[in-house]
Amino acid sequence: MLFHVRMDVAVPRDLDPDERATLLATEKARALELQRTGVWVHLWRVVGQYSNISVFDVSGTDELHDILWNLPLFPFMTISVTPLTEHPSALSANP
Amino acid sequence: MLFHVRMDVAVPRDLDPDERATLLATEKARALELQRTGVWVHLWRVVGQYSNISVFDVSGTDELHDILWNLPLFPFMTISVTPLTEHPSALSANP
Amino acid sequence: MLFHVRMDVAVPRDLDPDERATLLATEKARALELQRTGVWVHLWRVVGQYSNISVFDVSGTDELHDILWNLPLFPFMTISVTPLTEHPSALSANP
Amino acid sequence: MLFHVRMDVAVPRDLDPDERATLLATEKARALELQRTGVWVHLWRVVGQYSNISVFDVSGTDELHDILWNLPLFPFMTISVTPLTEHPSALSANP
Amino acid sequence: MLFHVRMDVAVPRDLDPDERATLLATEKARALELQRTGVWVHLWRVVGQYSNISVFDVSGTDELHDILWNLPLFPFMTISVTPLTEHPSALSANP
Amino acid sequence: MLFHVRMDVAVPRDLDPDERATLLATEKARALELQRTGVWVHLWRVVGQYSNISVFDVSGTDELHDILWNLPLFPFMTISVTPLTEHPSALSANP
Amino acid sequence: MLFHVRMDVAVPRDLDPDERATLLATEKARALELQRTGVWVHLWRVVGQYSNISVFDVSGTDELHDILWNLPLFPFMTISVTPLTEHPSALSANP
Amino acid sequence: MLFHVRMDVAVPRDLDPDERATLLATEKARALELQRTGVWVHLWRVVGQYSNISVFDVSGTDELHDILWNLPLFPFMTISVTPLTEHPSALSANP
Amino acid sequence: MLFHVRMDVAVPRDLDPDERATLLATEKARALELQRTGVWVHLWRVVGQYSNISVFDVSGTDELHDILWNLPLFPFMTISVTPLTEHPSALSANP
Amino acid sequence: MLFHVRMDVAVPRDLDPDERATLLATEKARALELQRTGVWVHLWRVVGQYSNISVFDVSGTDELHDILWNLPLFPFMTISVTPLTEHPSALSANP
Repeated sequence: MLFHVRMDVAVPRDLDPDERATLLATEKARALELQRTGVWVHLWRVVGQYSNISVFDVSGTDELHDILWNLPLFPFMTISVTPLTEHPSALSANP
Repeated sequence: MLFHVRMDVAVPRDLDPDERATLLATEKARALELQRTGVWVHLWRVVGQYSNISVFDVSGTDELHDILWNLPLFPFMTISVTPLTEHPSALSANP
Repeated sequence: MLFHVRMDVAVPRDLDPDERATLLATEKARALELQRTGVWVHLWRVVGQYSNISVFDVSGTDELHDILWNLPLFPFMTISVTPLTEHPSALSANP
Repeated sequence: MLFHVRMDVAVPRDLDPDERATLLATEKARALELQRTGVWVHLWRVVGQYSNISVFDVSGTDELHDILWNLPLFPFMTISVTPLTEHPSALSANP
Repeated sequence: MLFHVRMDVAVPRDLDPDERATLLATEKARALELQRTGVWVHLWRVVGQYSNISVFDVSGTDELHDILWNLPLFPFMTISVTPLTEHPSALSANP
Repeated sequence: MLFHVRMDVAVPRDLDPDERATLLATEKARALELQRTGVWVHLWRVVGQYSNISVFDVSGTDELHDILWNLPLFPFMTISVTPLTEHPSALSANP
Repeated sequence: MLFHVRMDVAVPRDLDPDERATLLATEKARALELQRTGVWVHLWRVVGQYSNISVFDVSGTDELHDILWNLPLFPFMTISVTPLTEHPSALSANP
Repeated sequence: MLFHVRMDVAVPRDLDPDERATLLATEKARALELQRTGVWVHLWRVVGQYSNISVFDVSGTDELHDILWNLPLFPFMTISVTPLTEHPSALSANP
Repeated sequence: MLFHVRMDVAVPRDLDPDERATLLATEKARALELQRTGVWVHLWRVVGQYSNISVFDVSGTDELHDILWNLPLFPFMTISVTPLTEHPSALSANP
Repeated sequence: MLFHVRMDVAVPRDLDPDERATLLATEKARALELQRTGVWVHLWRVVGQYSNISVFDVSGTDELHDILWNLPLFPFMTISVTPLTEHPSALSANP
């Protein structure tokens, strides 16, 4: 099932540069991994903001929370989750 | 280019039932048409709300406005538009 | 899986009294039915407001939306949905 | 009587790691204790957020405040309290 | 126990004048009755607004909801409830 | 005349413990003194929050500002002031 | 003593034109009268809005409420009141 | 022409005491100077807040911005500007 | 001098079609006239909304208010005004 | 195509003065360069605030994001982007 997730990132300015670099690299690797397994199905950058809008396809709320909570950037993100369902006017509902 | 669009629908209660039925049928037909042409690339229902979250792939802001302004339900929708761009951690940016 | 749902009700003042009575009776019957089947696991009234705070236990977002969308009072409610998961300090996680 | 409580946690990044570990362990122990005595009747994690939604069953507002004020994490939480009452469509009101 | 209650009143302009007069008279009579029995312990008008700020002393949330829900003006009021407790610097706590 | 005042307190975490203790003791002494002179007529704790809701009976806005501005905790409080007047349904207006 | 008052006006579109004309004329006469007596000391229009920002010099909160509550346009205005006091850098405080 | 300006002050707690004293003295001197030249025509303290509400009479937006931007406390203030014009019910418009 | 103006339009659904057509034609004629005289220097449509973002170049706040207040659509618009000034990094300031 | 962009700047107080000077000089140079190439078509200062309102003319959302993300002040700005299109009452649409 699908969930719409918005993540606003605010990495503290005084974070050690090496720690920051590692953090961002780890986050990117994890994002790629989750996209390759088909869980993180969409990942877009919001224009002009250090934010993304994403869609996750998970087995349920437990899996979604486990993924979000363990993202390397989690401590520095504000996250909002919106559950989605098939729209009756979507192509998938009108084959 | 991609735009994230949220539409919250509020059809007036006193709308003539026939007019309402026609309106919704026309809206659905238009949504399907725009999905088939590849412009309305995602269309999801927000759980528990008369709202959708959509992504449009258009040639620019003029085309997007023309599409939204002419949706049959436009007079009864509150619409917010968020421009998107490729995320550096997206698969498409890391082939 | 569990979802936290808040419903704020605003039945129009000019609704026909008989229609209103039928509406409320049907809503109540549906709420009781869904509680008996174990789907609507908690239903509380917010003190001083025509609102409820509820918890649903459903198979996923599709089922939850189907339930909410078809509630008799749906056209007259503002609904917000918050996905829940087990808390690591909950008794269920610390048997 | 029942109160709905939402707690949003924001532990400062510069808190001493040992102090943090002790704080979280103490908070968890206290949460378990209050659940076992039947006062903290529901405790859920909000998906994607360092927040919980809870329901307390207390003798009154004094007891509820005493509990919340003395939670180990209290200085680092934003708390909102909503009084609840039995819903006329709840099973308990329709035996 | 004490609850802080704010009520913002918005009586519809098209309400029948007689119905309005009866409504306001009934509301006033009820407010006086509840003050005389010691339940509605404070009732102030907010300057420049059709609103009041009140404090109720009730046996619990059930009684408070029952009182508010049955106020004649309830259908035309927006009500917010804030639970109170004794302040450690209040005279009553420092006899 | 009466003013409704809400104070939300946020003492910085890094305040010297002795300074904090002195600050809180001075604030409490001042609150008690103002209650004894009949100026600070009500002082309640908001359940679950480091906040109070108060009512002051002062000769006017100058006196009220002088009192609030000079509270020991003033630099660490967010204060909102709401002017009150007698409610036409209050007992005092219906002797 | 001084109070800052903002009034946002929203006269219903379906008000009888004669009633509207009378209402506005009465409001204007009352505003002029209160200015001449020195109670309504400032009255400005907010650019681009059907709103005013005013300052009243009254004997207290009772007088202010009585004035505002009885303005002809009161039923069609949203009013917010902010108590003022002399600023320590004002000329009046530094003669 | 007139502009309504609200300034909310938040001087950092860790500012050097001498620097703070100089800053406040300079701000006060500047405020007095601008009042004496007739530019800063009203300056009131908001009761219970480290804020002022002011009215400026300037030749235009350039002059207003130049004044506000160069106030000694500018870096520590949140400022909102509302353009004013003569009210049709003001005495000045009804000589 | 320049002012940034946002106008959100909400023409009532029950407005007489002829009246609506006249209203919109008059508004458009007035907008064109003001653009030709150099007062309404920019006029853009917000994508997906019945709103515009505009910049006016006027002699002052009186002229701006006079223009906005007399727009045919004024009764059906929510307007917000933001005063502008030359930016120190603008080309005009760095010839 | 055009985008309306508002940037609110908050440079940290503890930034090294030399670093700050370099930052601001680089930002100004970049702003001038982008104006000269016709991309940053309008740049205004908001009166009384460390903010600008701008209009960009870009080939699309990718170019806009690339520009904004790489502004020297980006880490210290809150940015909001609003897509624009030609207004049907604009001169350009009515030659």
